[in-house]
Amino acid sequence: SSNIRLAVIPGDGIGTEVVAEGLKVLNAAGVKVETTEYDLGAKRYHATGEVLPDAVLDELRGYDAIVLGAVGDPSVPPGILERDLLLRLRFELDHYVNLRPVKLFPGVETPLGKARPEDIDMVVVREGTEGLYAGAGGTLRRGTPHEIATQESLNTAFGVERVVRYAFEKAAQRPRKKLTLVHKTNVLTYAGDLWARTVARVSLEYPQVETDYCHIDAASMFFITQPERFDVIVTDNLFGDIITDIGAAVAGGIGLAASGNINPDRTAPSMFEPVHGSAPDIAGQGKADPTATILSIAMLLDHLGLTAAAEKVEQAVAEDLVERQGARAVRQTREIGDDIASRVAG
Amino acid sequence: SSNIRLAVIPGDGIGTEVVAEGLKVLNAAGVKVETTEYDLGAKRYHATGEVLPDAVLDELRGYDAIVLGAVGDPSVPPGILERDLLLRLRFELDHYVNLRPVKLFPGVETPLGKARPEDIDMVVVREGTEGLYAGAGGTLRRGTPHEIATQESLNTAFGVERVVRYAFEKAAQRPRKKLTLVHKTNVLTYAGDLWARTVARVSLEYPQVETDYCHIDAASMFFITQPERFDVIVTDNLFGDIITDIGAAVAGGIGLAASGNINPDRTAPSMFEPVHGSAPDIAGQGKADPTATILSIAMLLDHLGLTAAAEKVEQAVAEDLVERQGARAVRQTREIGDDIASRVAG
Ligand SMILES: CC(C)[C@H](C(=O)O)[C@@H](O)C(=O)O
Ligand SMILES: CC(C)[C@H](C(=O)O)[C@@H](O)C(=O)O
Repeated sequence: SSNIRLAVIPGDGIGTEVVAEGLKVLNAAGVKVETTEYDLGAKRYHATGEVLPDAVLDELRGYDAIVLGAVGDPSVPPGILERDLLLRLRFELDHYVNLRPVKLFPGVETPLGKARPEDIDMVVVREGTEGLYAGAGGTLRRGTPHEIATQESLNTAFGVERVVRYAFEKAAQRPRKKLTLVHKTNVLTYAGDLWARTVARVSLEYPQVETDYCHIDAASMFFITQPERFDVIVTDNLFGDIITDIGAAVAGGIGLAASGNINPDRTAPSMFEPVHGSAPDIAGQGKADPTATILSIAMLLDHLGLTAAAEKVEQAVAEDLVERQGARAVRQTREIGDDIASRVAG
Repeated sequence: SSNIRLAVIPGDGIGTEVVAEGLKVLNAAGVKVETTEYDLGAKRYHATGEVLPDAVLDELRGYDAIVLGAVGDPSVPPGILERDLLLRLRFELDHYVNLRPVKLFPGVETPLGKARPEDIDMVVVREGTEGLYAGAGGTLRRGTPHEIATQESLNTAFGVERVVRYAFEKAAQRPRKKLTLVHKTNVLTYAGDLWARTVARVSLEYPQVETDYCHIDAASMFFITQPERFDVIVTDNLFGDIITDIGAAVAGGIGLAASGNINPDRTAPSMFEPVHGSAPDIAGQGKADPTATILSIAMLLDHLGLTAAAEKVEQAVAEDLVERQGARAVRQTREIGDDIASRVAG
């Protein structure tokens, strides 16, 4: 078969370091891949003022998939790279599913004293193109005592239904077949009503899937006290942002949390990135854990239908994590990448 | 001095059970108090269709403080009692500070394997009268494929500044003197900008207070992995709702989490309530832990200037929690109340 064409956006800080290891593992998996690097992020912004030129965005549309490391730097005012690069990609490429597994691998230490790997094994299906991330809102009389600032969550039947359907499909494929809607229907009554009605309606088509509901505040607590409650979760953009970080924390840390920004209709390439940020404080020191990126590469392979390669990568990570149990936190970024790559290749 | 006039809203489910113990402890503290009970909640709603009649609200304004157990029942459609009773009280009585200590008492088991009491000792100052809780938003073409549902976060300079000032005052009074703003300024750019600018401006008046900033997603993670980062937190209504439940989870559970809905200007009575809900699943069984309500009573005493009594109650709870370490989770609601009350009286 022909080569997979991959756009690579290493980005800022540890982004470049972890992406290098992700690509190393991808190559080790024997997948024929052709990569093109895009220098988007803080450096480009400072050099040219550009964040994501339209021409670059158009070019990106032509790839089979995108790998992103991390963007963001304290030298850039907050929101610019996030909104105009990262979120713009998610919105323009219609990544309406932000898929984030929360899984405690054997051998991984969790801050939860008593949790076992079988207790923490879920998938969060976070909506990626609506809600409070739409950027709607405004400011009046800025800087005066009469200032008001608004921020609007925009939710559509179209947008909610498609992500809910995706989540039901996911749940139907898993052994437990349980889907939990996480929202705050008792306070966000308009948006919550749309989400709850949509889940109730689509659930009729999936009688084999058990559906449940949990408020975001209670869900945040249950991630810590009863993570075994959850199998597949579907939730909006902001709630998904928050609970997947809680998920990362309980499943062994942000160094292991993978994500896929998926366009299930394949009208544009999907984008795979670790949940963590650019971590300027440890950048350039070889301290970053590339595992989250490597697991994101496994998601990319799976998305492209290369299921065997995806499983090989995930399996290699799982073995590495068991082994690492003894010699923890002493390996450099590159060593971890090498170790996993050689398992994949071997 | 004259009696303290207290309005008591036991509410639904375990609300009535825990409030009884709270009042028991209040009496044991030797505080002269005159209580009037209000039967608001699911029962009243079913019997009369009333949630919070205006005349009742006006009467409530006349008390020195309000104690609330919990409201809500599965038999009532979601949102009605929350919005029209609980949130209406917070808004009408201008409870702009929702004060929620997150403190791991010695002897209390935490799901975090390694956390020690000195690591978890913070106070969350949650805004209580604005943000997404304003109820702004709407639905168009409900139930059709073209439905849209919006939900608006309303933030004012007036509302943000007063709660930020309160938080700086709190931070200045504590040994560590550290205040962290929790928000999502990189996505909620309008509201985040108002919050961040307000904190920056007010911080000039508090050079002794160290200020910090943390995104809500990162903060949710740090509550689990590095709770010692935090001293006082100031945040908006929704983020405060979420992180205080995370706080409750890491500090030993919802059975211990107290809160005060405070009107610092004293233009209306403040209201004290446990963070937990009505828990219909365990109602009537004497299984509820009244400690959260008893700690809320301590906050009430403190608010009314009865500092010595407040400390006595908190001290009694602390002793009880150390003692309970051995004989955990076997005492009934009433026994816990009795034990703490006799410590307070003794
Ligand atoms: C950087 C930020 C805009 C982003 C988000 O909020 O989605 C990040 O936190 C994430 O979860 O991918
Ligand atoms: C019941 C609900 C409306 C309420 C809130 O969201 O504030 C509760 O979760 C709380 O934290 O007191």
